[in-house]
Amino acid sequence: MKRIEPRSGVAFTMERGSILTVCDPDGQQVSDLVAYNAMDAKEVISNGRTFDYEETIQIGRGNRLWSNRSNPMLTITADTAHRHDFLLTPCSEQTFRHFYPDKPVHRGCFGNLAEALEPFGIMPDSIPTAFNIFMNVPVDGESGLLAVKPPTSRAGDKIEFRAEMDLIIGLTACSAYDSNGGTFKPIDYSVTSGA
Amino acid sequence: MKRIEPRSGVAFTMERGSILTVCDPDGQQVSDLVAYNAMDAKEVISNGRTFDYEETIQIGRGNRLWSNRSNPMLTITADTAHRHDFLLTPCSEQTFRHFYPDKPVHRGCFGNLAEALEPFGIMPDSIPTAFNIFMNVPVDGESGLLAVKPPTSRAGDKIEFRAEMDLIIGLTACSAYDSNGGTFKPIDYSVTSGA
Repeated sequence: MKRIEPRSGVAFTMERGSILTVCDPDGQQVSDLVAYNAMDAKEVISNGRTFDYEETIQIGRGNRLWSNRSNPMLTITADTAHRHDFLLTPCSEQTFRHFYPDKPVHRGCFGNLAEALEPFGIMPDSIPTAFNIFMNVPVDGESGLLAVKPPTSRAGDKIEFRAEMDLIIGLTACSAYDSNGGTFKPIDYSVTSGA
Repeated sequence: MKRIEPRSGVAFTMERGSILTVCDPDGQQVSDLVAYNAMDAKEVISNGRTFDYEETIQIGRGNRLWSNRSNPMLTITADTAHRHDFLLTPCSEQTFRHFYPDKPVHRGCFGNLAEALEPFGIMPDSIPTAFNIFMNVPVDGESGLLAVKPPTSRAGDKIEFRAEMDLIIGLTACSAYDSNGGTFKPIDYSVTSGA
């Protein structure tokens, strides 16, 4: 497995049919994932299209992440954590100023994704709502109120995705205080042939 | 008020400080709203940023619709309906094929928005998850499951938005069966000076 150091991010390509495994090595850490069609990066994961077709906001094993063009991009083929978020956007300079006015500002997952994706020609405005692996965002169905809680993931929890098209992936080890219970930890990942 | 005929859409500009009023004249109809910065249409409403800053998925009076750049775009200044959706994407050819395989395919709100926004240089890939006025999408907080139910809006229900920057707005009278209880009705709207 490769390691994403705390409060950093990476981007890479993966071929259709290959498997991305994302592991929380120490527990209670969040990893923001974004995906683009490698042939045309204007096609990108869409939380709204995913909620439409999967008919749930709790995305896990068996669900697919859909694109803004209504194509499946990734299928979740294994998941030991059972708790992820697809509502919220990557933390950023602006979210640090808003939520943590007394703490040092960090460029966050948004800044880390922007730097990692730039070599692929993907600009910051093209970073969508991320699929926030291991992020724990309970929603009150009645009021709609949401909260960002520490992840329920334990050391060694994993999620696997199969690529349904050739993809550019952006992936982080989250930088925000609330999403990982105030600790900054690494994230491990691998891409393997699906054969 | 101007009328948006059933299963159609419009686009227009509005100045910072002006008020957009959207009315459901007959009741139980949905209107998809999208908004772009008139000076730079790469800045666009973002459900994820809105959920982040408003800390709820039930957006109504007093809430703001935020952009992908973390700026407020619209503030909801009045709301007699109290039930809207910001989870789901505009209906489209693909959603008609998926959800209504036995019914005629329609280009949906997505196609209507694409045509209306084209004169402003906004391409279909740049249509985000819309703010779906009057749309009734209950979410089970425990399971995450969602459902598209007929709107609870009654004839004459209205929502008002104040523009927080100069905007390009796309607005529809929804074309899908489930979102409006199988009826296709018009939507009325006006833009007035906020002074």
